Amino acid sequence: MMQLKSYLAGAWHEGQGDRVVLHNPATEAPMAELSRATGLDEALQHARDVGGPALRAMSFAERGALLKRLAKLLHGHREALIEIAIDNGGNTRGDAKFDIDGATAVLAAYGHLAGELGEAPWIVADEAVEIMRGSKIRAQSVLLPRHGVAVHINAFNFPAWGMIGKLAVAWLAGMPVLSKPATSTAALAARIGEILVEEGELPAGAFSMLIGPAGDLLDHLGPQDVVAFTGSADTGATIRTHPRVVAQGVRVNVEADSLNAVVIGPDVGPGTELFDLMIRDCVIELTQKAGQKCTATRRILVPQDRLESVREVLVDRLREVASKTGDPANKEVRMGPLSTAGQLRDARAGLDALASSATRISGDPQRQSFVDVPEGKGWFLEPILFEATPQAALDPASSFHRVEVFAPVATLLPYDGTVAAAARIVSAAEGSLVSTVYTDDREFLADAVAELAPFLGRLVVADEKAARASLSPGCVFPVVNHGGPGRAGGGGELGGRVGMELYMQRTTIQGGGSQLARLLGKSARKE
Amino acid sequence: MMQLKSYLAGAWHEGQGDRVVLHNPATEAPMAELSRATGLDEALQHARDVGGPALRAMSFAERGALLKRLAKLLHGHREALIEIAIDNGGNTRGDAKFDIDGATAVLAAYGHLAGELGEAPWIVADEAVEIMRGSKIRAQSVLLPRHGVAVHINAFNFPAWGMIGKLAVAWLAGMPVLSKPATSTAALAARIGEILVEEGELPAGAFSMLIGPAGDLLDHLGPQDVVAFTGSADTGATIRTHPRVVAQGVRVNVEADSLNAVVIGPDVGPGTELFDLMIRDCVIELTQKAGQKCTATRRILVPQDRLESVREVLVDRLREVASKTGDPANKEVRMGPLSTAGQLRDARAGLDALASSATRISGDPQRQSFVDVPEGKGWFLEPILFEATPQAALDPASSFHRVEVFAPVATLLPYDGTVAAAARIVSAAEGSLVSTVYTDDREFLADAVAELAPFLGRLVVADEKAARASLSPGCVFPVVNHGGPGRAGGGGELGGRVGMELYMQRTTIQGGGSQLARLLGKSARKE
Repeated sequence: MMQLKSYLAGAWHEGQGDRVVLHNPATEAPMAELSRATGLDEALQHARDVGGPALRAMSFAERGALLKRLAKLLHGHREALIEIAIDNGGNTRGDAKFDIDGATAVLAAYGHLAGELGEAPWIVADEAVEIMRGSKIRAQSVLLPRHGVAVHINAFNFPAWGMIGKLAVAWLAGMPVLSKPATSTAALAARIGEILVEEGELPAGAFSMLIGPAGDLLDHLGPQDVVAFTGSADTGATIRTHPRVVAQGVRVNVEADSLNAVVIGPDVGPGTELFDLMIRDCVIELTQKAGQKCTATRRILVPQDRLESVREVLVDRLREVASKTGDPANKEVRMGPLSTAGQLRDARAGLDALASSATRISGDPQRQSFVDVPEGKGWFLEPILFEATPQAALDPASSFHRVEVFAPVATLLPYDGTVAAAARIVSAAEGSLVSTVYTDDREFLADAVAELAPFLGRLVVADEKAARASLSPGCVFPVVNHGGPGRAGGGGELGGRVGMELYMQRTTIQGGGSQLARLLGKSARKE
Repeated sequence: MMQLKSYLAGAWHEGQGDRVVLHNPATEAPMAELSRATGLDEALQHARDVGGPALRAMSFAERGALLKRLAKLLHGHREALIEIAIDNGGNTRGDAKFDIDGATAVLAAYGHLAGELGEAPWIVADEAVEIMRGSKIRAQSVLLPRHGVAVHINAFNFPAWGMIGKLAVAWLAGMPVLSKPATSTAALAARIGEILVEEGELPAGAFSMLIGPAGDLLDHLGPQDVVAFTGSADTGATIRTHPRVVAQGVRVNVEADSLNAVVIGPDVGPGTELFDLMIRDCVIELTQKAGQKCTATRRILVPQDRLESVREVLVDRLREVASKTGDPANKEVRMGPLSTAGQLRDARAGLDALASSATRISGDPQRQSFVDVPEGKGWFLEPILFEATPQAALDPASSFHRVEVFAPVATLLPYDGTVAAAARIVSAAEGSLVSTVYTDDREFLADAVAELAPFLGRLVVADEKAARASLSPGCVFPVVNHGGPGRAGGGGELGGRVGMELYMQRTTIQGGGSQLARLLGKSARKE
């Protein structure tokens, strides 16, 4: 069995004590094991003392070149990584590519972005402005890498993209990273870490990887450190309120629960490309990675007079996927299992909660037989669709506005086709990562942006004209903001240059006009 | 005696129960009283339900016009407000003007900024970018006001500027405000609130004011609310870790303790304008508002070979101020008392802590006799200067790197004149609001920016050429960032447009290129 190791303070560590076993979630076969690592204080200090200076000694261009090189390196290992993802993550081949190609894409995008960042050790963030009217004194802001370590605590669902996406941004910003993959799917992350260390020619101290429990990691954080966490709201709250984190003013970014919505405009009827796009997106967002995406669609707002046609087509398509749910080692399989027995347990409990506010119209939560899987084996759940009444849809206390079932599950919410009602329903979830509006009605769209966007990190808009080019909303591109207010954690990652600010300090430089011009460049770069 | 009232849900409230008495800190005479207000849940809901929609219905230009009008309104009450500040805050006339004129300046600056923000309900934050190379789909970010209420919890030292500075930014962004002044100096804030309500022609629900204890205020916050807090690190931690704040993902900005430093470059000698400027700034930053400024200078880094000349001149100037410390009702007085008996007690305890790492070289912490004040009356402390050894200066455990004495107190820290040593010393305080570098050495300056800025929210640079125009570093202009990493709270306020982001949600809009262009404007505005 594979033994997963941590990479701390420049050396591999096997860990100590009780072993945790990782399984193939389709077969329940054990496939890797790991133990608790120690020496986290020293690992963090090594990253700060060795990795930080090494990265800061490189220019943005040099760090960008590193990212581009790593993108090629990982791409070269693509096939082997896909195999691990299928085996450890229950991913279909498509799911695995989504994760792994997503990782290389972020490296490439931030590698490319480096070219715009200039040769200075800082990014000039704005133009010089007079400190008050008529004064010779100007103010201009720069961004500089923080002198601590970036601690990345990642979720189980994207072991490649989650890890590498955060790494790329932190490294381009100039911060060393300690990456902690989620334990249940750590086999893929561990292999990627191994490739980075063995073949990546990384600056010393720039990379550390903690496999297994976090232990006392947070107890050793300092005021220049950053924690970027993706996972449950509960763990996010634990990190945010950790005494050391609070006392030291550690910067924390959280990406947590999200009840993403889709709003079907009142103008979108069957027979249009936009309708078909919406159906395609809904199916992808329910079933890709077995619905285990923080950006997956959980609530589908349907104009009341379209309810029947949407329900009919969607149920049909989901049953098709259900008939091809099983062991992803079989290439005909379109959806794999959930990642762990615990996830399946939680999902079933969530289904019970949803049933208190809506009616299940498709899918059997107790189904035991799946493609190429022995009866009762594996942590499978077929796609499940609920439907609510228009009254329940408007009630913020309804469970589908509050309970995120991290599985192939969504609820149809009929609404009256007005932006006002859509806004009440979307905002009832108190903050989400992404929502999507399908419409060709320009007024509806403009109102929807004004009313929905404050509750979202990203709003995807789709019209008939761009339907063919449109990309499913759950895919997070490196140039878009990833994060959302309230329940979604209040964070923001990626989004091109803006995402680098998580790892940098914004400092206003205040001084004489000519002095600033000499120091920061006459024609200031704009953000 | 003046009775201070809260303004909640559109009505004045006297409060109930035990009365708290406010004093003139120079004479200890009671001057106002207040009681605990109730109904905070309803007040917050009124702000969200009435104030939010009213403000969002106005354009940026209309909200800007409101700010400009309020600037004029407050300026018209200037003389009466100065009298209250002298009476309730122990301010000299100069201190009072600094606070009150600062308030009008922020209103005017943000009123002016409104002109750049366009006519849409959102601010377009960047240019449209391809979501991936060759795609027709673009991403572009907008900023929209959050739909909650902005809760402003202010510090006692700037009842006018603190309150109005936060208000101006939130209102221009489009959020209603509940402002909670610090109790000990609430008389000035309460009068300003009264002027706003009675003469400001404010949109209904846009303004609420809680006078006295915060009570259960935090228990009623929601996911679209924002808390902006200025005060102690302890209270900041209490807010950040409050269960409701954490559970609801309330956005929190903290501006807390700060051990601001001044770095005198090795090239700056007596007889230059730069040397004189540095001395002038140090005296202002020690004694203005009796040193009760979060941006006051606490640590002065002096090249070892300049120590004697800096010490001599500075001690001389501080003794001059000490001889004119007393009741600010007397116009000859240059420095008034601390704000409360508690502040004086804390400051004296802080002096004991400083004495464990440095030697007091000027000022008597126990002095009892001040200008125009009966012996032993009033909460006075004359300017105090400490001096450390070069070894102690480099030791991060030294008390002057850890204890903020919120009073006219600073420590001279001799260093070897290198940027490396200066960076070690400045960063030992683990994050500050502002530091200042005096130098004409361009290489020293560029290195100092790279090495010091990550630990600062603002870095003031001063050279011989701009010396005459230079402004004392403790003054926070509306266009500069106010906040700092780590110990300083990790926040950011003001800074022109960037400061509005505290009250807005950044949302990426993703869609077809022509669709986005139509929606957000062809030639996107840049930040």
